[in-house]
Amino acid sequence: MVAGGWRVELGAMVLKEGGTLFRVWAPKSKSVNLLILTGRAAGTVVMQPEGKGYYSVTVPGAADGDRYLYQLDSGKTYPDPVSRSQPDGVHESSQVVDPDQFLWTEEGWQGVPLEKYRIYEIHIGTFTREGTFEAVIQHLDYLVDLGITALELMPVSQCPGKRNWGYDGVYHFAPQSNYGGPEGLRRLVNACHRKGLAVVLDVVYNHFGPEGSYLDLFGNYFTDKYRTPWGRAVNLDGPDSDPVLEYFLCNAGYWISEFRFDALRLDAVDWIFDQTPKPLLRRLADEMHLHRDRLGRHIYLFAENDTNDVRLINSPDKCGFGLDAQWCDNFHHALRALLTGEVTGYYEDFGQFSQLQKAFEQAFVFTGEYSRYRRRRHGGPTENHPGSQFVVFSQNHDQVGNRKCGDRLSANLALNQLLLAAATVILSPYLPLLFMGEEYGERAPFHYFVDHSNPELIELVRKGKQEEHASGICEGEIPDPSAEATFEESIIDVAAPKEGEQAVLLEFYKQLFVLRGSLPALQVFQRDAMAVSGLPEQKVLFLR
Amino acid sequence: MVAGGWRVELGAMVLKEGGTLFRVWAPKSKSVNLLILTGRAAGTVVMQPEGKGYYSVTVPGAADGDRYLYQLDSGKTYPDPVSRSQPDGVHESSQVVDPDQFLWTEEGWQGVPLEKYRIYEIHIGTFTREGTFEAVIQHLDYLVDLGITALELMPVSQCPGKRNWGYDGVYHFAPQSNYGGPEGLRRLVNACHRKGLAVVLDVVYNHFGPEGSYLDLFGNYFTDKYRTPWGRAVNLDGPDSDPVLEYFLCNAGYWISEFRFDALRLDAVDWIFDQTPKPLLRRLADEMHLHRDRLGRHIYLFAENDTNDVRLINSPDKCGFGLDAQWCDNFHHALRALLTGEVTGYYEDFGQFSQLQKAFEQAFVFTGEYSRYRRRRHGGPTENHPGSQFVVFSQNHDQVGNRKCGDRLSANLALNQLLLAAATVILSPYLPLLFMGEEYGERAPFHYFVDHSNPELIELVRKGKQEEHASGICEGEIPDPSAEATFEESIIDVAAPKEGEQAVLLEFYKQLFVLRGSLPALQVFQRDAMAVSGLPEQKVLFLR
Repeated sequence: MVAGGWRVELGAMVLKEGGTLFRVWAPKSKSVNLLILTGRAAGTVVMQPEGKGYYSVTVPGAADGDRYLYQLDSGKTYPDPVSRSQPDGVHESSQVVDPDQFLWTEEGWQGVPLEKYRIYEIHIGTFTREGTFEAVIQHLDYLVDLGITALELMPVSQCPGKRNWGYDGVYHFAPQSNYGGPEGLRRLVNACHRKGLAVVLDVVYNHFGPEGSYLDLFGNYFTDKYRTPWGRAVNLDGPDSDPVLEYFLCNAGYWISEFRFDALRLDAVDWIFDQTPKPLLRRLADEMHLHRDRLGRHIYLFAENDTNDVRLINSPDKCGFGLDAQWCDNFHHALRALLTGEVTGYYEDFGQFSQLQKAFEQAFVFTGEYSRYRRRRHGGPTENHPGSQFVVFSQNHDQVGNRKCGDRLSANLALNQLLLAAATVILSPYLPLLFMGEEYGERAPFHYFVDHSNPELIELVRKGKQEEHASGICEGEIPDPSAEATFEESIIDVAAPKEGEQAVLLEFYKQLFVLRGSLPALQVFQRDAMAVSGLPEQKVLFLR
Repeated sequence: MVAGGWRVELGAMVLKEGGTLFRVWAPKSKSVNLLILTGRAAGTVVMQPEGKGYYSVTVPGAADGDRYLYQLDSGKTYPDPVSRSQPDGVHESSQVVDPDQFLWTEEGWQGVPLEKYRIYEIHIGTFTREGTFEAVIQHLDYLVDLGITALELMPVSQCPGKRNWGYDGVYHFAPQSNYGGPEGLRRLVNACHRKGLAVVLDVVYNHFGPEGSYLDLFGNYFTDKYRTPWGRAVNLDGPDSDPVLEYFLCNAGYWISEFRFDALRLDAVDWIFDQTPKPLLRRLADEMHLHRDRLGRHIYLFAENDTNDVRLINSPDKCGFGLDAQWCDNFHHALRALLTGEVTGYYEDFGQFSQLQKAFEQAFVFTGEYSRYRRRRHGGPTENHPGSQFVVFSQNHDQVGNRKCGDRLSANLALNQLLLAAATVILSPYLPLLFMGEEYGERAPFHYFVDHSNPELIELVRKGKQEEHASGICEGEIPDPSAEATFEESIIDVAAPKEGEQAVLLEFYKQLFVLRGSLPALQVFQRDAMAVSGLPEQKVLFLR
């Protein structure tokens, strides 16, 4: 039973009074056996049907650390769809985890108010040479010194293999085992709170990865009514969708309650299809607000979204979903196209100075105008949303990693341009986000990498990247996503001594954050309190 | 140029100054030729590209009645996707139509206020033995005498063959040729207005029929991002979707302006997928309001919808779409299950007296409760929407025609039950809709029928119906949808002398409408002005 009386009513739940309650939704199976593989209770247990496809059983002797599998009526065995730990990867047994074993030390933690968020996005596998949650902890002082207030982790759900951006996660309750699993993740969050840092987790609710997902054998997690670019669409409004909704609502509550995250960042919500009157996103916001009120600390829900639609952040009484903030890609594109002069891909829509001015005024550059790249009108107006409802950046994992060569801005721009990019983001009336290493102009690329075991899938991913980048602007070969070297090249060295331009850039970032924190004018997020004017010829922007 | 300066800027537009302007959206073709097949201007004309995939040309000699085709760069010729007339069916040439040739006589027509709508739904092909628009006119006095104020036509877009419900339409601007084409339809609407009847047209914006649709060869009318049960989903939010949106917005304006319809009924809007900030439904409402203001008469937009979601009828300032009213299937199901005791299919969710009471109180019976039939929670609350925003019925084309034997209520119920059904609908605080012949207990079934030319498609439809009705409750064979006899059996005889129970029922309907028109208590649509209480044991409902 976790803080405040709430718990995930799914998976393996260690009971205060001893023993473990196992509960699984498996309507496609007429019976379910629980196979406990290790520990005092090792053996096979027949689970009891509860109705509506749920099966459960309490096993007195089962405890933290025990391995288990579910056996469906096909006779085959599978990991728990709500597994909290997959020590041997996506195809092997699940592990019972007792969240109350962890000793949290920062009980008075209140979180960080939204307006104070200065986000630093990292990929656990490449932020340090060790590639673990634990190894991040040694760098927290550095981040605090830099001026960061929130650490954002790219997704950590158990993925196939050892190297993955995280968007191929298939066990959304199990922190990646080679990062350090649930114990390591809790240690990292606790350490962040000790340093005064909020922690944001990127979660993927629009699809599951292509390898190691056995969910479809348990129940109708997926639908063919919609299609996503990455995998089967999640069933949120068809038959049997209530338990799927429940799975995601539980997942959000799980990260907040059992791991004490401060915020979630929802990946690509425009690919979450739910046409019911109260869709998942609206329910997630309600769920997060419940946890916020229950736990008495700042808790936020951010969304990545491609539709430039403020329905996400509108309040429910305006028929909105009530999320707290959304990423603003338009700001990035407007800034980058100006800085680099790039005109390919989605940059073809950008490059006008007036677009950066509009990004400062309205966050979205496209508020209904025709987009050549999209070949349609794009976006809607932002109305009077405060700037604290938009996250802006000059780089992030996508804007670097989806480039042909994974090249960062520092590979393309001179120092003064990098300084300008930094100032534009950090002095903006929005919430700034940095991508790991950007603050000193890290020279390592950030490549796309995977570690699948299926040769056909490996080839499919390789070909996909080749096609995606057929007309990329970078010289040379596209790195092989499955090669270990591709991953290795992406590891950064944040602790290396900074000299020359790197030192200048790093110091500039720090000073910008000092300014942001001290100048009253930079604390104002109300749109109507600000006037933006510009001199396009001189490329000067005035904010009042 | 049609009334008030608005016209459809697509298709063949006869010009006031003589000649005809042809305009087509065909971005998939590098060039488009116009082949004029008949008349003074017969010959081939090269069309001029306008940009964004549009081609146009003005042909001085082309006039009303001329036949034409478009030739794409494959060399093949096709009818106009925006054809106003397809005299020889879906595969043959299009025809130029000059809407100003028709002499409207009811210039002072103001329409019917929403609260006064008493709708009578007909299928043109089976409402009379002749099966034409023209043949309907002789029965308008009968409808007025019955107490009807609005005639609703099942879809009339040109369909494959001569027999179709209308939902397989592929030329959404061309009234079905064997019904009498555009001229016949205008005569019918004009005659209705002369009798004081509004006219509602059922339009299908969620898919195109499976035969005779060449639209995909012209442009990206379709998307694979979504799927519908009836055909490829329409592309409303992907690349090249602006002109597809424009096609439907034009279509709505076309029926209102060139045919003077009073309202549109949008078929199954839950299968219209549009995730942009301002989706098609919202744009359609805006478009209809523009026409209403421009033309100065009552114009309405109704929607059929399966999601029990008031977002459809909420005002835009509450983030709604702003439609005027929606069909309420829940009312029907609650009523029918009580009357007939049916428990199969979607009736499995109904049969409680309290559900009818809730339907009277809240329109929707499912406002978030679990539905066994759907295997998920269903619906949302109706809030304070007035009753005039919901259309109710004890029968309609779907609720009769989708039954295994197409049997009407009169085939299953005794007279006193039919009287009760009539009273429940007509004395309800909602807008009543009757299905043709219901008012006298027509004994002809209303079957599902099609008239495709492709043998594979014919077999597919036949098998589909067999599977759909595998567990139907009706005795005997499922009628073959493609057999002419299936269609013939569905023709009703509204003019036949009514005797015995039929006469009693008809007279009762008339008296109910008299009551509805005269009792002040039956003019109240405000939900908060009404209290509903019931005696479930006695099955008595009190409205105050």
